[in-house]
Amino acid sequence: MSIAIYPGSFDPITNGHLDIIERGSKIFDELIVAVLQNPSKKYLFTMEERIEMIKDAVKHLPNVEVDYFNGLLVDFARKRNAKIVIKGLRAVSDFEYELQMALMNKKLYKDLETVFIMTSTKYSFLSSSIVREVASFGGCVKDLVPPVVEEKLRQKFALKN
Amino acid sequence: MSIAIYPGSFDPITNGHLDIIERGSKIFDELIVAVLQNPSKKYLFTMEERIEMIKDAVKHLPNVEVDYFNGLLVDFARKRNAKIVIKGLRAVSDFEYELQMALMNKKLYKDLETVFIMTSTKYSFLSSSIVREVASFGGCVKDLVPPVVEEKLRQKFALKN
Amino acid sequence: MSIAIYPGSFDPITNGHLDIIERGSKIFDELIVAVLQNPSKKYLFTMEERIEMIKDAVKHLPNVEVDYFNGLLVDFARKRNAKIVIKGLRAVSDFEYELQMALMNKKLYKDLETVFIMTSTKYSFLSSSIVREVASFGGCVKDLVPPVVEEKLRQKFALKN
Amino acid sequence: MSIAIYPGSFDPITNGHLDIIERGSKIFDELIVAVLQNPSKKYLFTMEERIEMIKDAVKHLPNVEVDYFNGLLVDFARKRNAKIVIKGLRAVSDFEYELQMALMNKKLYKDLETVFIMTSTKYSFLSSSIVREVASFGGCVKDLVPPVVEEKLRQKFALKN
Amino acid sequence: MSIAIYPGSFDPITNGHLDIIERGSKIFDELIVAVLQNPSKKYLFTMEERIEMIKDAVKHLPNVEVDYFNGLLVDFARKRNAKIVIKGLRAVSDFEYELQMALMNKKLYKDLETVFIMTSTKYSFLSSSIVREVASFGGCVKDLVPPVVEEKLRQKFALKN
Amino acid sequence: MSIAIYPGSFDPITNGHLDIIERGSKIFDELIVAVLQNPSKKYLFTMEERIEMIKDAVKHLPNVEVDYFNGLLVDFARKRNAKIVIKGLRAVSDFEYELQMALMNKKLYKDLETVFIMTSTKYSFLSSSIVREVASFGGCVKDLVPPVVEEKLRQKFALKN
Repeated sequence: MSIAIYPGSFDPITNGHLDIIERGSKIFDELIVAVLQNPSKKYLFTMEERIEMIKDAVKHLPNVEVDYFNGLLVDFARKRNAKIVIKGLRAVSDFEYELQMALMNKKLYKDLETVFIMTSTKYSFLSSSIVREVASFGGCVKDLVPPVVEEKLRQKFALKN
Repeated sequence: MSIAIYPGSFDPITNGHLDIIERGSKIFDELIVAVLQNPSKKYLFTMEERIEMIKDAVKHLPNVEVDYFNGLLVDFARKRNAKIVIKGLRAVSDFEYELQMALMNKKLYKDLETVFIMTSTKYSFLSSSIVREVASFGGCVKDLVPPVVEEKLRQKFALKN
Repeated sequence: MSIAIYPGSFDPITNGHLDIIERGSKIFDELIVAVLQNPSKKYLFTMEERIEMIKDAVKHLPNVEVDYFNGLLVDFARKRNAKIVIKGLRAVSDFEYELQMALMNKKLYKDLETVFIMTSTKYSFLSSSIVREVASFGGCVKDLVPPVVEEKLRQKFALKN
Repeated sequence: MSIAIYPGSFDPITNGHLDIIERGSKIFDELIVAVLQNPSKKYLFTMEERIEMIKDAVKHLPNVEVDYFNGLLVDFARKRNAKIVIKGLRAVSDFEYELQMALMNKKLYKDLETVFIMTSTKYSFLSSSIVREVASFGGCVKDLVPPVVEEKLRQKFALKN
Repeated sequence: MSIAIYPGSFDPITNGHLDIIERGSKIFDELIVAVLQNPSKKYLFTMEERIEMIKDAVKHLPNVEVDYFNGLLVDFARKRNAKIVIKGLRAVSDFEYELQMALMNKKLYKDLETVFIMTSTKYSFLSSSIVREVASFGGCVKDLVPPVVEEKLRQKFALKN
Repeated sequence: MSIAIYPGSFDPITNGHLDIIERGSKIFDELIVAVLQNPSKKYLFTMEERIEMIKDAVKHLPNVEVDYFNGLLVDFARKRNAKIVIKGLRAVSDFEYELQMALMNKKLYKDLETVFIMTSTKYSFLSSSIVREVASFGGCVKDLVPPVVEEKLRQKFALKN
């Protein structure tokens, strides 16, 4: 059985992430969305909020599970018995950073393969940070994030609709 | 009448910016240099100083105006009735970031077009941050910035000449 | 009055080209689609066919004209009294080639500015050569090219629909 | 059951290709190496030779099959009932071309996903064309290709060892 | 006599740095490893620790010297009478940043040439920041850094072996 | 004594090549400009013409020699007892191709180092092929090539001045 991990900060989950999750869930038997808690990083949403929003957004996908980790991805992969990491690629700068991470992870855990899926062109401009920025200035983020995230952002900021 | 906006932090304006402004002012009927005030960012120069330096540098260009905004560029464009944003491209990394911003802005404001002009090769290495760094160590920034900016930097730091 | 040239081989025109033409026609007073005839290159369609297909595709745009040239773009621009060249950018490799051409053209004709517009993400994968290849194997090119081009390709190859 | 296609010219197969095949065969239940015959391209080896060399190189991998196609990859994928295409990525230029192909293929066959694996760094410089060039000048290609390919190249050219 | 400077933060020195130093020391008569102290940056290791680790790692290379600087690289180069700067390139993003720095440095000191060496593919994923991150989570950094650095990191963090 | 090779087709030599030669001749004790004759490639100028033009352009540089080779660069380097190859970098696409060649050459000849110098920004758009194209249409190539090359191109084509 093929188990794949889709790691990220998901602060918050966007429609671009969701697109990768839906497509990945068709390729692999089981997909674990793994939310990273990096102690030296500041988040807009707490770990609990980020997990809750993802769970709501993926509830139609029976073979997708949501988990979290802090520390090294390779340790989490070993613990969860997963040998595949899935990542979305949008642009050349993504590509180089992700290549570096994939090589480092393979160095630390020889059996771990990273596979890449191209993000849908309609989400190629989308990132959590751009969503946070637009929402912080009251811009409309409908079409960019799942409804539950739009609602949560509305509570944090004053959003147009 | 074509009205174009040239947005940026301009902390401080460089000869690379000025090159884009001069060329943009020949292409469009009116060019608005729009200085961004991002509350979460620290600047070397105050908004007033940045505006004053730009006004001095563009005073020979009758169809160029200097304004400022905080918040979303698309809201400023709507307010100023402008449908064109102009950006300078120096390198591949610029290109990807600017592409992302252009797509996001088009998503938020369908009629807004971003047009790109290649920065002159002689300014391809130039940025406000590299100017600030060189000046902070007392390096010579003549040829890199308009005279008024060199003078202002001299007041902030001890500059060679 | 701002006159812009949009040069290319257009062998054949695609919906990606048409998107740039429509957006360019809103930015500039007049847009000249300039079809290149390079004697050392082989085309699928003759110059006459390429011009005819473009004319049909842009007939709803009153300020767009179709012309052709062989030789240097700068000579054509001088002849047509145009000081702006418009190009679509899809990817990093486009960017570098177009930058090189823009700099060379500016070297040969100091007053000529090249402005770039980002291709719509939904056409970011599209090129005339990929259309020719798909059509040559009988693939469906609807949504990729204007109807008149689809019909013309159907006559050249056996197309599915 | 997940069936993946690994398409290419394989003129000839290199150790870089073999690395992708071995890793892909661990991720998916079945992997079809699909040799492309493009009528408008000249090959060093015939289709039969290319298939024979791949079969020899992958004989230790029970879930890998070798097949061929001419025409569109999407038609081959439909025929073989495969919904996954696997590609190796070495560099940024690969990335952009492969992204374009992946998007086009998805346009032509909505259910077809392209997944990318990073080529091992030790093969990042390797391509069939560089192998052909080195061999044509009598350079040593051991370590770059499987033994059977080295032998075949030796027969075509005068190789050092 | 050719004197080259290899500048960097070296926080800490990695096997990738060491590879560049060893190869650079064969090309030039004298190589000065120049450790940068940027007052506005936070380091994991003090200047003394960074210098000590480099000195230990390069002790087998008679024409390599370790020095430090704060301020502009061009001022340090003038002081040390060096006209060559050596840099390692791993990726496209390195390339653009380093190109910008090389052009700026040439602008500030006309006789200063920057030469680039490609990092060995086996170290292409390696950086000081990734070493610090892995070590901070207790990951194994053997093979990534010289033994003296591994030991030092062990003292700072709890490392697996 | 450091001997460096600067290989290329030089069809014809441009001011960009000359810039690299002049700067390389200051870094290394001896610089060999090595003109490649690839039997499968068509050139505008014969080997004799290309060598003659380079010799004229570098006659002010006492430590620069002009030679030619066909076959592998590594065999030529061994024959000439050179352990350094010098290449100019203009753009990201150069970078990737040159990286691939440098790694392949190092694979074939372990002691051979490739060092890269950034091309002057004022020549960043310049290539032999763009010079041939401009000259073939009668464009002015003064400032782009040494005078001897301009004269030779004038004889081949009808050049403006």
